Amino acid sequence: MDNHRSVRREGKRVFLVDQTKLPHEEAIFCSEDYQTTCQAIKDMVVRGAPAIGAAGAYAYVQAAIGCTNNRQQLKTAATEIRSTRPTAVDLFNILQTLTAITEKNGSISDLEQEAEKAVEGIVSACRRIGEFGATLIPDGARILTHCHTGSLATVEYGTAFAAIRIAHEQGKNIFVYVDETRPRNQGALTSWELSKYGVPHEVIVDNARALLMQKKRIDLAIVGADRICGNGDFANKIGTYDVAVLAKHHGLPFYVAAPLTTFDFSLSDGSQIPIEERPSKEVLEIRGTPIYTSGTGVYNPAFDVTPADLVTAYITEKGIMTTPQIGAL
Amino acid sequence: MDNHRSVRREGKRVFLVDQTKLPHEEAIFCSEDYQTTCQAIKDMVVRGAPAIGAAGAYAYVQAAIGCTNNRQQLKTAATEIRSTRPTAVDLFNILQTLTAITEKNGSISDLEQEAEKAVEGIVSACRRIGEFGATLIPDGARILTHCHTGSLATVEYGTAFAAIRIAHEQGKNIFVYVDETRPRNQGALTSWELSKYGVPHEVIVDNARALLMQKKRIDLAIVGADRICGNGDFANKIGTYDVAVLAKHHGLPFYVAAPLTTFDFSLSDGSQIPIEERPSKEVLEIRGTPIYTSGTGVYNPAFDVTPADLVTAYITEKGIMTTPQIGAL
Repeated sequence: MDNHRSVRREGKRVFLVDQTKLPHEEAIFCSEDYQTTCQAIKDMVVRGAPAIGAAGAYAYVQAAIGCTNNRQQLKTAATEIRSTRPTAVDLFNILQTLTAITEKNGSISDLEQEAEKAVEGIVSACRRIGEFGATLIPDGARILTHCHTGSLATVEYGTAFAAIRIAHEQGKNIFVYVDETRPRNQGALTSWELSKYGVPHEVIVDNARALLMQKKRIDLAIVGADRICGNGDFANKIGTYDVAVLAKHHGLPFYVAAPLTTFDFSLSDGSQIPIEERPSKEVLEIRGTPIYTSGTGVYNPAFDVTPADLVTAYITEKGIMTTPQIGAL
Repeated sequence: MDNHRSVRREGKRVFLVDQTKLPHEEAIFCSEDYQTTCQAIKDMVVRGAPAIGAAGAYAYVQAAIGCTNNRQQLKTAATEIRSTRPTAVDLFNILQTLTAITEKNGSISDLEQEAEKAVEGIVSACRRIGEFGATLIPDGARILTHCHTGSLATVEYGTAFAAIRIAHEQGKNIFVYVDETRPRNQGALTSWELSKYGVPHEVIVDNARALLMQKKRIDLAIVGADRICGNGDFANKIGTYDVAVLAKHHGLPFYVAAPLTTFDFSLSDGSQIPIEERPSKEVLEIRGTPIYTSGTGVYNPAFDVTPADLVTAYITEKGIMTTPQIGAL
């Protein structure tokens, strides 16, 4: 058991690095039952598609332990776990595997083994994504990344972040522009995690991305994904589509890094991905400080969909793929 | 004297609606001397290119009164006033007119008259900009605007804001998406001022603009300007260039509204406009609440430059103009 993982389990207890407190405080959130883990997913104590998948898998194990594997109760629990966040697909994929075990009368121990196998799969996939992704980052590269895709988001290594981290570990002289990613400012997590690995970087407001591209101070953009459709369209944190359009306008490569568990081949294109709208409070205040007067109307979509034609390549644990190669999977 | 103006003068006292306190508190900042007015411009108590011009004109009058029109002292004061903010050109244009009066041995009373004339010119120009701009806003339009261009920014009426306000007053059924405009969240001022006039609107994070355009929920974008070059390139609040690129990508009209005092025909293109970089504190915290850990590196440019080829039309007090018409001025 690696205590440095952002999501881990000991028996029926699930430990999450509390992302709502970072970067101001490093705290561990401990959940004793699946309901608490579900609430933690909803409250974004844990966030990032693969980390949500891991937390959801562990929540299912908690539910199985808590109701001694009662099939009807487990079915209810699975529905609750699936309903925590609607956009990321990793959660649904992992739950499908685990509920199939229950349907085949698998034991709690079977579920524990499968959940651990799934989490190990995420970690090793991220490591490989990082290795493949690093080959796309030349020495001297100035990189733009959006949102947070580090170990917090994926148990370990990260996705887009893994490529950056490994390029840095290979001795490449790189510089990262971290956009703050309003409304939840996940750039603060990216900056915090880049600092941990000593990667040179600066934070910018989301509005400063285009200026940097115009001034030729960015060489490539790399982001993660929450769900990738069969045709290569993908959902990711709100603002990702902006980055893709800007990269296209400035002739810059735009890479998407994600494990195969993030792919949803049941959806033929991005118009079918449900987009979560989150509470206006996320926009109206920061850490309890009001920015706007109360009663201000807000539209707060959590994700957007980037069409495949804006993507230069997809970085997966199976290698670097273009859109036609995604279609062939 | 209109007490509702965001910038006004009574003798040597200058009154500014304190934009650093809005929308949470409606306070008037009173300055007794030009140094205090200069500091207020630097601290963004007053902001918006035309309002800065008005405050700068009044600061020069304060200096003339304070030093009983001593030419050497006034020269020093003019330099100080000009150095408060480097990007907006209205300030430089107004100062040039006023210092010319001093050079011709004009009296304090001459300066007061000229300053008031300049401010009245701003107000009537804005009213006309609003009338011309409203003709570009069809009934039913869903409008994206960036930063704040209302009466606070221009003494009265505003620029882009005036077009929206007058379209609404004409009974057109319009809806405004107000992007928050990080880092200083001037969207809060726009939302506050739209509420005053009863214009339906919602605040969005800057990251949500592209999604709205993709979903065909925006019909046009309209912004102000801090300096427009002879070729039509213009500087405005950071993120304006992003809006322009996104509007182009989605085939939407992108309008710039500004008085002729904002034009700087001495600059042939946008590469010559100096871009102000502001303190990292603006990004790192909001109203005293830290968002990032202290010591986080930040790049914080206050403006960007949008090339003329992304502009559908310029709205001035002389009418609606295309880029070639700007060139002909």
